[in-house]
Amino acid sequence: MYKKIILGIDPGFQISGYSILRIENQKSFVIDFGYLKMKSTDHLSKRVGQFYFFFNEKIKEFKVTNLALETPFLGKNIQTFLKLGYLRGSLYLLSDKYKLKIHEFSPREVKIAVTGFGGASKDQVALMVLSMFPKLQKLPKIEKNDVTDALAIGICGAWKCRIG
Amino acid sequence: MYKKIILGIDPGFQISGYSILRIENQKSFVIDFGYLKMKSTDHLSKRVGQFYFFFNEKIKEFKVTNLALETPFLGKNIQTFLKLGYLRGSLYLLSDKYKLKIHEFSPREVKIAVTGFGGASKDQVALMVLSMFPKLQKLPKIEKNDVTDALAIGICGAWKCRIG
Repeated sequence: MYKKIILGIDPGFQISGYSILRIENQKSFVIDFGYLKMKSTDHLSKRVGQFYFFFNEKIKEFKVTNLALETPFLGKNIQTFLKLGYLRGSLYLLSDKYKLKIHEFSPREVKIAVTGFGGASKDQVALMVLSMFPKLQKLPKIEKNDVTDALAIGICGAWKCRIG
Repeated sequence: MYKKIILGIDPGFQISGYSILRIENQKSFVIDFGYLKMKSTDHLSKRVGQFYFFFNEKIKEFKVTNLALETPFLGKNIQTFLKLGYLRGSLYLLSDKYKLKIHEFSPREVKIAVTGFGGASKDQVALMVLSMFPKLQKLPKIEKNDVTDALAIGICGAWKCRIG
């Protein structure tokens, strides 16, 4: 039997959205989703530690086998970009610890997987994900965006694993 | 008695130089230095794991209390800059695990600490460090540069800790 557990993550120093999907016999099921919120007043090293610990527990709990991430792009802030690397580094460390396979997708690939269209707007992606998971509507707006992003990344990962 | 153990690191995916200094009664002693060499053919997550494990052992062995790093700058290659963040993230994680204090220095601060002059060239810094630690001459050229950089960073850390 072909079975995979995919963890999709949209990392951030304030809010990190995540989704966990199970693939079984060519079908995908979302088994968990949510977010980790960290205090911007906490020292960076403490937050990197919290992030690592949080996903270490998720990986153990759900017996994750694959990790799905979006390729980062350099925005206006170089420091933010570098620090995002700290969180990604923690995920690479976890992938080494638990022998997870890492899949990285461009924003375009994620959009195609969710909406079928690479030029879809961020709002269109969110709408599509929300229509699939109505429970998400209950989340506060800021957290909701991070969770829908993480679900889109997870869905993209599941899609690639099914056809791969 | 005032005692600190400083680990200075110049991280890299091929060669990471390091230095370990002990400060006791306002005096600094270099107690270890060297480098970690990783295979460029190994997967990134494996190398992040090796890097974390290597410095985890050094921190335990020498009972390190402080970490000294150089502020990274964005060079020509954005991917290299991002990946450097993966290694720095591992060090932030270790600093959280062992409650180490992190000190970050600009290249200018490191140069001043070693040569007394912020406009010193890379070669001048290396020459100064080599004159302090003649044993370094035995190292192969590439590794030597990474180790002298790590020693300069460690010396800067010791200098700041002594006066701090």
